[in-house]
Amino acid sequence: MSTYQLGDLAERFDCQLHGDADTRIATVCTLQSGKPNAISFLANSRYYPHLASTKASAVILKPEDVSKSPVPAMAHHNPYACYARVAALLSQEPVRQVSDIHPSSTIHETATLGANVTIGPNCFIDENVTVGDNCYIGPNIVISRGVQIGEAGILHSNISVYRDCVIGKRAILHAGVVIGADGFGIAQDNGEWVKVPQLGRVVIGDDVEIGASTTVDRGAIEDTVIEDGVKLDNQIQIGHNVRIGAHTAIAGCSGVAGSAIIGKRCTIGGMAVVLGHLEMADDVHITAQSMVTKSIKEPGVYSSSTPLQPNRQWRRNYARIGQLDEIAKRLSKFEKTIKKK
Amino acid sequence: MSTYQLGDLAERFDCQLHGDADTRIATVCTLQSGKPNAISFLANSRYYPHLASTKASAVILKPEDVSKSPVPAMAHHNPYACYARVAALLSQEPVRQVSDIHPSSTIHETATLGANVTIGPNCFIDENVTVGDNCYIGPNIVISRGVQIGEAGILHSNISVYRDCVIGKRAILHAGVVIGADGFGIAQDNGEWVKVPQLGRVVIGDDVEIGASTTVDRGAIEDTVIEDGVKLDNQIQIGHNVRIGAHTAIAGCSGVAGSAIIGKRCTIGGMAVVLGHLEMADDVHITAQSMVTKSIKEPGVYSSSTPLQPNRQWRRNYARIGQLDEIAKRLSKFEKTIKKK
Amino acid sequence: MSTYQLGDLAERFDCQLHGDADTRIATVCTLQSGKPNAISFLANSRYYPHLASTKASAVILKPEDVSKSPVPAMAHHNPYACYARVAALLSQEPVRQVSDIHPSSTIHETATLGANVTIGPNCFIDENVTVGDNCYIGPNIVISRGVQIGEAGILHSNISVYRDCVIGKRAILHAGVVIGADGFGIAQDNGEWVKVPQLGRVVIGDDVEIGASTTVDRGAIEDTVIEDGVKLDNQIQIGHNVRIGAHTAIAGCSGVAGSAIIGKRCTIGGMAVVLGHLEMADDVHITAQSMVTKSIKEPGVYSSSTPLQPNRQWRRNYARIGQLDEIAKRLSKFEKTIKKK
Repeated sequence: MSTYQLGDLAERFDCQLHGDADTRIATVCTLQSGKPNAISFLANSRYYPHLASTKASAVILKPEDVSKSPVPAMAHHNPYACYARVAALLSQEPVRQVSDIHPSSTIHETATLGANVTIGPNCFIDENVTVGDNCYIGPNIVISRGVQIGEAGILHSNISVYRDCVIGKRAILHAGVVIGADGFGIAQDNGEWVKVPQLGRVVIGDDVEIGASTTVDRGAIEDTVIEDGVKLDNQIQIGHNVRIGAHTAIAGCSGVAGSAIIGKRCTIGGMAVVLGHLEMADDVHITAQSMVTKSIKEPGVYSSSTPLQPNRQWRRNYARIGQLDEIAKRLSKFEKTIKKK
Repeated sequence: MSTYQLGDLAERFDCQLHGDADTRIATVCTLQSGKPNAISFLANSRYYPHLASTKASAVILKPEDVSKSPVPAMAHHNPYACYARVAALLSQEPVRQVSDIHPSSTIHETATLGANVTIGPNCFIDENVTVGDNCYIGPNIVISRGVQIGEAGILHSNISVYRDCVIGKRAILHAGVVIGADGFGIAQDNGEWVKVPQLGRVVIGDDVEIGASTTVDRGAIEDTVIEDGVKLDNQIQIGHNVRIGAHTAIAGCSGVAGSAIIGKRCTIGGMAVVLGHLEMADDVHITAQSMVTKSIKEPGVYSSSTPLQPNRQWRRNYARIGQLDEIAKRLSKFEKTIKKK
Repeated sequence: MSTYQLGDLAERFDCQLHGDADTRIATVCTLQSGKPNAISFLANSRYYPHLASTKASAVILKPEDVSKSPVPAMAHHNPYACYARVAALLSQEPVRQVSDIHPSSTIHETATLGANVTIGPNCFIDENVTVGDNCYIGPNIVISRGVQIGEAGILHSNISVYRDCVIGKRAILHAGVVIGADGFGIAQDNGEWVKVPQLGRVVIGDDVEIGASTTVDRGAIEDTVIEDGVKLDNQIQIGHNVRIGAHTAIAGCSGVAGSAIIGKRCTIGGMAVVLGHLEMADDVHITAQSMVTKSIKEPGVYSSSTPLQPNRQWRRNYARIGQLDEIAKRLSKFEKTIKKK
């Protein structure tokens, strides 16, 4: 990491400086672990106790918390976002001195590579692939024919991108990602399944990050679309012809079934399911392990799932769930009886 | 895509022709997006409105819907399966002119490759592997020793098939699939785990398709078996010694625990769980996010899961689930009290 | 497999021998499938019927079950763990005669490889990687710079290990595993997301096994830690800064969100979710498809989830879950009314 002065960081990131402008900052730390020349942040009031005793050299926090800091501080209305930018600056890596195209990789003669593209070992770049400027394509990556990748992309390792898919600028794809495999299109025919050809593409906008082992299927006829700024965690499955609105974030292990349309700025918790052929409005938030079974027209927070209980207690309540309709009917009948009396 | 006349397509796929037999068909489209020389289909009555205004050149639909079509039509009792076959014909790709075995791949001297096998870059085919005729094995695929793959298989990229597994004819395995990794066999011993060797194989029948990043574990002693015509979507986990009956289809993100036996022609929705050591009859259908906790002996549709609600409302009901047994008991007690009066 | 005499096996694994010490044992079998020269085991009394008719040559069982065995037996207080060790001995493979480092792999000049390390085709071992003695690193594996792997590791195929991660001794990583991809750290900023650099590592203890396609994210500032003896099944997602206590086992498809602390000797069933920023005590057991939403301080078994029902019945009860709070209130009101009378 490089070293900066706190005063310079405050100026660069539009913060109000409190304390010694010459404080040296070279790395980041948590409030609890604080170490020399390290800056931390406080975004959540439940960490006040850690602030009081921190050994960090400086801290980023909200203007109203400045007085609580025992160490020099940078005040910002959004300390977590500010921390993210400071950490990015501090952890900036020197440009790696690797060969541009590793000799063990196979690049089809019709592929077009932009300026400053690095391709690691054992990659395969097929016919008519276009890779923009400043991309880093890690080892063991397979990019099928006709794929386009915008400038400044980072593809980590063991990634597969199927034919004709489009990935926008500044994409980050982590290890094991699969973009554009066939959607799950099968037609019943006399008790057997006929494969429905999957002829659409996956079209991914700019500034999208996709976590390890996440899969996004190609469309059946039209395209599957991931709009700008979408962030997908690991182990997520996105079905064919799904559209995910700009700046939506989805946590790990979730699944979105075919032809679901998800709005902009939504968040979806881990292990959640969105069923197919429905629409979710903008600014909808789904909590973890919930299942969206029909369209949601109003912004807001939605949930399903059942409470964790000690197993003995849960067994008793569990059995009652299967009797709920009967219980409700008995209660109604009963209310009528009483009213009559 | 190639171009066909509608009359020829109708004859080839056993449909009744309505309208101009000379209509040129070169591609497919949705009813909504319809484009020139493209054929669409209507399988679901809720799309009638789109049919009326379609710009498709022709449409595949049920005999009883022919009169509603504003464009030439092919009538078939199963329009979706018929569409699947027409689309497969139209999207048939010319045979790719690639080198049979890419020089960057490593093929063990004891491996046996059939006629017209294509192996992409950076593959590893180990000892005594047998690959049938007309297989396409994509880039970066690892096939361990003793594996057998039937004719006309398609293995996409970044796939691993462990030793001694058997994959039937016309298999399609998408990127990131893992066949035959060790099952989760561990024995408790004084608070630590002893690994139980996984000595069975995975045996996969004919006409099986397996989606991206799906994993099928090898058996512990006997084999894990996927019967003919099974279709698995992405991100599915199949445990050791599972048997999945012929023509069963499982949607994305589901998990089947060890030694579960699933019948023929079943369907399992997304993110569902089938616990281990149980049996499901033929023709059982499990809806999304359900958990099968014991054997199912009768065909039919089965479900669990809770309804999505606005978070405020859900919080109130959620708390009550933990009181259900008590609520039921209070009601029963109450009913007795009243009866006595 | 090699061949042993039952008497020798009993002595080697500290069992009491019953019956002919000269019984030849070359392989293992189930009680049902029993075959010549094969040993089976009985760990669960529900398999008594299979024991009576077994065609196995010998069986491992508890001392109290010896009298029920129709064939020679080895008595041990923990037959399943004993079976695991016998099976490991019988299935021991001869050392593979492959080239130590396959010429198609790329090993950075600064990487340090221990004694007897085998590296398969198409691997990439980056700067300053350290691999201990006796490791087998399968084909198409990517190990980024600064990674350390302890002695006797087995990495199967298509694995990615990101920079600076540490993997202890005797690790087994199955195909498609990803260790150290970025955690899901994003900060909201005016309706868009800012990436939070993920600067910690993944530190994995000794004797850890990780199943196919499982992903373990690197920490945000501090490390993600998997302690000694942890066993992870397939398709699991472990978020950033999680700590999993020693000898905990997690079944397939589960997810653990960021900064969760899981105790020692816990078990977590399949498709379970552990939310972030909470703590689970030692010896906690979570059943399949449950969600842990807050800290658990007492050892024990905990569950959530709803019962599987025929779909018609489930639909009726499902609707009532959304009315539960109202039902409970009606009952309370009602009880008051009655008491007054």
